[in-house]
Formats: sequence, structure tokens, C-alpha cells
Amino acid sequence: MQDLDEFTVTDAALAQMANTSDPRLKEIMDAAVRHLHAFAREVNLTPAEWLTGIQFMTAVGQACTPVRQEFILLADVLGLSAVVNALHDRKARELGSQSSLLGPFYREAAPELPNGALIAANPTAPVITLYGRVTDNAGQPLPHALVEVWQTSEHGLYDLQQGNGEAMDLRASFRCDAAGNYHFRTVRPLGYSIPMDGPVGNMVKLQHRHGFRPSHIHFLISADGHRELVTALYFGDDENIGSDTVFGVSGSLVVGAKVDSGSPIPGLPAVHYDFRLAKADPNDTGRVGADPTKLMHAAE
Amino acid sequence: MQDLDEFTVTDAALAQMANTSDPRLKEIMDAAVRHLHAFAREVNLTPAEWLTGIQFMTAVGQACTPVRQEFILLADVLGLSAVVNALHDRKARELGSQSSLLGPFYREAAPELPNGALIAANPTAPVITLYGRVTDNAGQPLPHALVEVWQTSEHGLYDLQQGNGEAMDLRASFRCDAAGNYHFRTVRPLGYSIPMDGPVGNMVKLQHRHGFRPSHIHFLISADGHRELVTALYFGDDENIGSDTVFGVSGSLVVGAKVDSGSPIPGLPAVHYDFRLAKADPNDTGRVGADPTKLMHAAE
Repeated sequence: MQDLDEFTVTDAALAQMANTSDPRLKEIMDAAVRHLHAFAREVNLTPAEWLTGIQFMTAVGQACTPVRQEFILLADVLGLSAVVNALHDRKARELGSQSSLLGPFYREAAPELPNGALIAANPTAPVITLYGRVTDNAGQPLPHALVEVWQTSEHGLYDLQQGNGEAMDLRASFRCDAAGNYHFRTVRPLGYSIPMDGPVGNMVKLQHRHGFRPSHIHFLISADGHRELVTALYFGDDENIGSDTVFGVSGSLVVGAKVDSGSPIPGLPAVHYDFRLAKADPNDTGRVGADPTKLMHAAE
Repeated sequence: MQDLDEFTVTDAALAQMANTSDPRLKEIMDAAVRHLHAFAREVNLTPAEWLTGIQFMTAVGQACTPVRQEFILLADVLGLSAVVNALHDRKARELGSQSSLLGPFYREAAPELPNGALIAANPTAPVITLYGRVTDNAGQPLPHALVEVWQTSEHGLYDLQQGNGEAMDLRASFRCDAAGNYHFRTVRPLGYSIPMDGPVGNMVKLQHRHGFRPSHIHFLISADGHRELVTALYFGDDENIGSDTVFGVSGSLVVGAKVDSGSPIPGLPAVHYDFRLAKADPNDTGRVGADPTKLMHAAE
């Protein structure tokens, strides 16, 4: 038996995990150990820094509650969630619209409203229109596609963050017409900060990051035989458009509202966006991001 | 602004952390993000696997209590602690004895006993002797060096794991004589399993690892002007000597007990081990591993 050094420890760890029966678990843990050790060697991680890391991870775990998922927040601000989303979306990206993060504020069973409806119960800001068409990747309309939308108010809060969180507001689902067209009215949402009062917020402050997401509206679009599209549209004049704390913004998702003669509601400033859905993939393995409440229940 | 893909997300994350004022934090987080993203790309991590990882890390954090540190256990079984220990010890390794992990069972202020004392209060197994000399890296004796030892009983438990954990047993400190010699009597410790009832134990089981550490006795040796040596001696005939779950065993730390005419206590089986201490390093940055109770208090 040789003396272990910072390289041979890696070999020993990989050898000890070599009998893992699940081949995918083996593959993932093998790569995790190699990258983790390479990281420690690259920065010459000291015992004191190792301890700081242990304390940080412990604090992140202990900040999780049935309604707060601090590890998802950590994965988001480190860009890991966006990488996983991009990997998942690699094939569809060539064919359909760019995706973005689902985020923790999606709710199933939002009310279905008629096209043209206003989704804000108590608007105190100018109303705008969003409209466009849902097509397949060849540009052919997808009749009766389902368009689910959700967003913050003009004050930067989702309905889940107001009162007891039970009232539905600023979210709805719309059924496209026979030509694949959708349209609805809303107020422009305000960008907002991630939760800054926990260990992840502390890290973001130490990194001199502002912690904000730019103003955006979420979309989840589905049609039979096509890949569900999880995405969001971002307002280009938001001051944080180039520095989204969770890396959800892509250039092709940046929009602006302007008076537009093509809009189905004349006179109102409008955002025109057409969505393209890729063909369904039988190996599709789910969404990045989840309702934190469900997630915690799943973990129990 | 371009559309983000699984590579450009990494660039965006590094750019957003570039203003971190602490240069060491910047260096560490820069490397952490690069390795984390490279890991996800290498294994093509799916959203479902991302979620499993989030749930696992959350469970590890929530398993931590004032007397249990599941994240240290995770770092140990993945070999990270051993890598950090090896990095810390790189310079001393060329000059002094090989180090090993401090582990969570070290206690300060163990009773100082005279050389030759028996450190087991109620031995039910044959008594053995450990003896040897503490020298500098040139082989010159270090008079009156302090040798702290701690170990499990012949039943595989530390004193901290018995009763209310308050009684001191199977641990002591010895002051070397003027020629740097130490000796004491004890029972051979039994190897033991890491805690297997938490998320880390579940992972170890899925990896078909036995979860045991081979039989060993811990040492912490100190002398003025020299680098503190944290190490352990491992019994070579333990069935798990080649597969320590936390990667603490090195070849030069493997010993056996045999009747030895050089032993200061004739007739008893003895382990003879001489320790070499490197010169003190003013940049020394602490130990790997810590009392979990203190660690949790430090994290509060």
C-alpha cells in the first residue's frame, strides 16, 4: 500500500465506488469526485477553507423549509440550473424557441381565460398587450395550443407572495385559436430580487452582485405531439437585462412593448412574440425547477 | 445579447462574479463554477437528476444537528477531506511523518498520564504497548514532545459515543522523556462503521461500500518550533485495511503488534513507531476535521 497524496486519493475513491450497481449513479459520482478533487487541487483548498465550505453548505441545507428551497437558489445563482436547462434544451434549441427557467412560482390549474382577457386583478400601471402565434418548427400554426402565463405585479411580487398566497392573480392559461393565435392584456411586471436574507444571499452580496432578475413574463406552452416549451420573455430596457442573477435571459427572449398596428387590440402598447415548438421527444426527462413545496414533500 | 447555451452560461456566471472584492473568494468561486458546470456537461445532467441532487444536498444539510455533521461525513466519504489533508501536508510529507485525518472524535484537555500508563479504564481484550520516539526531520530527538492519543474501544466505540459522552476514556496525553521517547498501554481498537442511518450512509450503500474504517489509533503530536502532526496508525491485519471508507490509510501508517525485545514493557505485544515532525510553517492554516459540536456552534 502506498502513501496517499492529493492525486492517489482520487484513484482510491474511484476504485471504492467502482462496484456501484446503478451504472448512471456510478457515472455521475465518478465524474463528481473527479471534478470535486480537481477543484480542490486547482485552488489548493486549505483546511480552514474546507471548514468554511462545510459551514456554508450546512447553512444552505438548514435554511430550507417547506416553502423555501435554498439549494435550488444556490444552483440558480451559480448558473448550474441554467446549464442543465441548456443541456436539456440542446436539441430543441435548433428547432424551436429558446427556453428559460421555470422558476419556483409556477402553479398548475391557473384559470383559463378567453383570449384578450386582462390577467391583473387590480392594475395600477399602464396595461399592455402580448400577442403572437404558436407554431411548429416548420412555422405551421398549432391550433388550440395551450399558453400558460405567470408574472409579478408592477410592484415585483407574485400572487404567491401576497397575503396568504392563496389568491390567483397575474396568471392564466389561454387556448390559441384555430390559427394558433393567442393574445392577452396585463401590466408590465417589475423585476425583483432573489431572497437575500439567507446564506445564498450573503454569498451574492460578497460577490458584489445586485441579486435582481430583470422584468419578465413566464410562459409554458404545450400542444399535442410537441415538446412542452418552458420559457420567459424579458423586457430589454430593464437596467438588469444583461446581468440576470440566475442566468435565465437569452437574446432571443428580449422584447419591448410598443404601439403596433398588427396588434389585435389597437392603441395599447404591445409585445409581439411567436413561439415555435419542437416535435415531442420520447426521452424527455422533465423540467428544471419545481414548486418548492412539492419538492420538499417529494424529499420527505 | 446572445442566446445562452451550456458553455456561454459559464462565461456569464464568471463575468457576474468578477467584481468579488475578496480575491481568494473570487478565485475559489471561479474554480468552483467552472468545475461544477464542466461536471454537468460531462455527464449531461438531466433536470430529474438535478432535482435528485438538490434533494440529496438538502437532506444532508437537514441531517446536521449540534452533535452530527453530515456534510463533513459527505466530504470524508467522497475523499475531499483526504485531498485537502494531503494538499495541506504536501510540504511536511517530504520531511516528516505522513499525516491522516483528525476525525470528529478529538477532544482537547485529555488527561496527561505518565509514560507506560494504560489508557483503557475497563479492558476486556489483551493489552498491547505502543512505543517509539519523536524526532525532527533530521532524526534528532525532540525532548518532552507532547503525544496525544485517542481511539475506539475493543468494541468499536469512542468514549464520546458511550453513556452521556462525558466520561474520558481511551484517550490521554503523554510527555516524551528527555530523549523523545513515549510509551503507553492500551487495548487494540476495533474498526467501526461511519453513521449509516442518514443520506450519506444511503449513498455509501448504493455504492456497495462497506462503510467501515479499519482499526486505528489517533495521534496528535506537538513540539515547540515544529509543525503539529495529526496522524493515525492502522492495524494491517484489519479486513478493511485496503478500503478505508474515508481514505485515511497510507502505507507508511500501517502497523502490527508483536512481542518485541526493544519494547520498554517486556512480554506484551508491542507496536513500535517513530514520528518525525517537520519544522514549523508560519503559513500553517489549521487542521482538517473538527469537533462537530464546536463546528455547529461556529456556524451559528
